[in-house]
Amino acid sequence: MEKLLLVLSGPSGTGKGTICKEILNKNKEIRCSISATTRSPRLGEINGVNYWFTSKKDFCEMIENDELLEWAEVYDNYYGTPIKKLQDMLKDNDVILEIDIQGALQIKKKFPNAVLIYILPPSIEELIKRLHDRGTDSLEVIEKRLSLAREEIAKAACYDYVVVNDKIELAVKKIMAIVIAERCNVIRNKILIRNISESRGESK
Amino acid sequence: MEKLLLVLSGPSGTGKGTICKEILNKNKEIRCSISATTRSPRLGEINGVNYWFTSKKDFCEMIENDELLEWAEVYDNYYGTPIKKLQDMLKDNDVILEIDIQGALQIKKKFPNAVLIYILPPSIEELIKRLHDRGTDSLEVIEKRLSLAREEIAKAACYDYVVVNDKIELAVKKIMAIVIAERCNVIRNKILIRNISESRGESK
Repeated sequence: MEKLLLVLSGPSGTGKGTICKEILNKNKEIRCSISATTRSPRLGEINGVNYWFTSKKDFCEMIENDELLEWAEVYDNYYGTPIKKLQDMLKDNDVILEIDIQGALQIKKKFPNAVLIYILPPSIEELIKRLHDRGTDSLEVIEKRLSLAREEIAKAACYDYVVVNDKIELAVKKIMAIVIAERCNVIRNKILIRNISESRGESK
Repeated sequence: MEKLLLVLSGPSGTGKGTICKEILNKNKEIRCSISATTRSPRLGEINGVNYWFTSKKDFCEMIENDELLEWAEVYDNYYGTPIKKLQDMLKDNDVILEIDIQGALQIKKKFPNAVLIYILPPSIEELIKRLHDRGTDSLEVIEKRLSLAREEIAKAACYDYVVVNDKIELAVKKIMAIVIAERCNVIRNKILIRNISESRGESK
C-alpha cells in the first residue's frame, strides 16, 4: 500500500512540535522527514538523522534543478526538503513533516495524496495564554504571532483535517485515528480492491 | 459540528452485520438508521425502534413525494429509508446505515458528506469459505453470491474507505478510527475554524 505523507501545521503556540514528537515516539513505523541544510552540524548531530548536511553549492544546484519541495534562507543558511530523499523514505515508511502553511500547500501540489493536518488552539484566548506562559516572546512579538495566527487559521480550510489541541494525548489520539483512517482511504487501496475482485478462487 | 452519516456496505459473508452491531454496542453516540416498512410488527418489535411501521398507502405516498432515500419491495412488503426521519436523527447523533452498493451511491447523491465504507473480505477464497461455513446457501446460491461479490467489490472504488474484515475487533477499530478522523475532517469544521480565527481575544 502507498505510504502516508502526513503534513502538520499550526500557529506557534499550538504545540505542534510536542505532538509531532509524541507521534514519532509512539509509532516506530512513522518517520520524521529530514531537511537538508547548509549550516554546519552541531555537536552530536548526524548526517541523515538530524539533517542532510549539504554544501551551499549543492544546495543551490538543488534549487536550480527544482529538486526541493520547499526551501528557505534563515540567518545566511539554507534549509529545505529534498524531494528525492522524501520519496526514498516514503518507499518503506509513513513520513511526518512539520511545516508552515505555504510549504504545506506546495507539498499538496507535488504530492496530491499528502494528508494535511492543521493543529488548532482551543481558542485565541488559550493561544494568547500559551504564548505568554512560555515567556520567550516580547509583547510585540506575541501581537505579531497572533495576527499571523488569525490569518493562518482562516486558511486551515484548505487542509484535509483540523485537530484542536486541547490536551496533547487527545490530539495525538486523533492524529493516530487519521493515520489509520487514511490507510483505509480508497485512493490508497485501488490495487487491493482490484486484486480481491479479480482473484480467481473456486467455490467448488 | 455536523453529525456523521456512516454508510456500510459489503458482499454477503463479509460480516458487515456483526461489525455494525459491535459499533452500535460500543458507541452510544452512534445510532442505527431505522427503515420504514409496510409489514406487520413481529412480537416484541417496537415502532421507531426496529422499524417505522407504515401503511401501504402512506408508503406509496412517500415514494410519490420522493421522501425516501431508497426503497425496495420484498415478498409483497415495502422497505425504505425516510429522508425526514434520517435528518431528524442526524440533528443529535451520528447515524450508521447498512445498505447495498446502489443504495449507498444514492445516499451519497443526497447526502454528499456521507461517509461510505466498504467492508472487504480478506480474499475471495476466505469469502467462499465463510459462505460455505455458514451453511445457509446451496452451491448455486453461493456461486451467484460470489459472482455478484466480484462485480460489487470492483465498484468499491467509488466508496470513501475500504476496511478488510480479517478480524472483527480490528475492523471495528478501523471504522472507529474513521469516525474520529471524519469528525476532524475540514468539511465538518468550517464553523469552528471561522469562530477561532475571528474570535477577538486581547493579548494585553
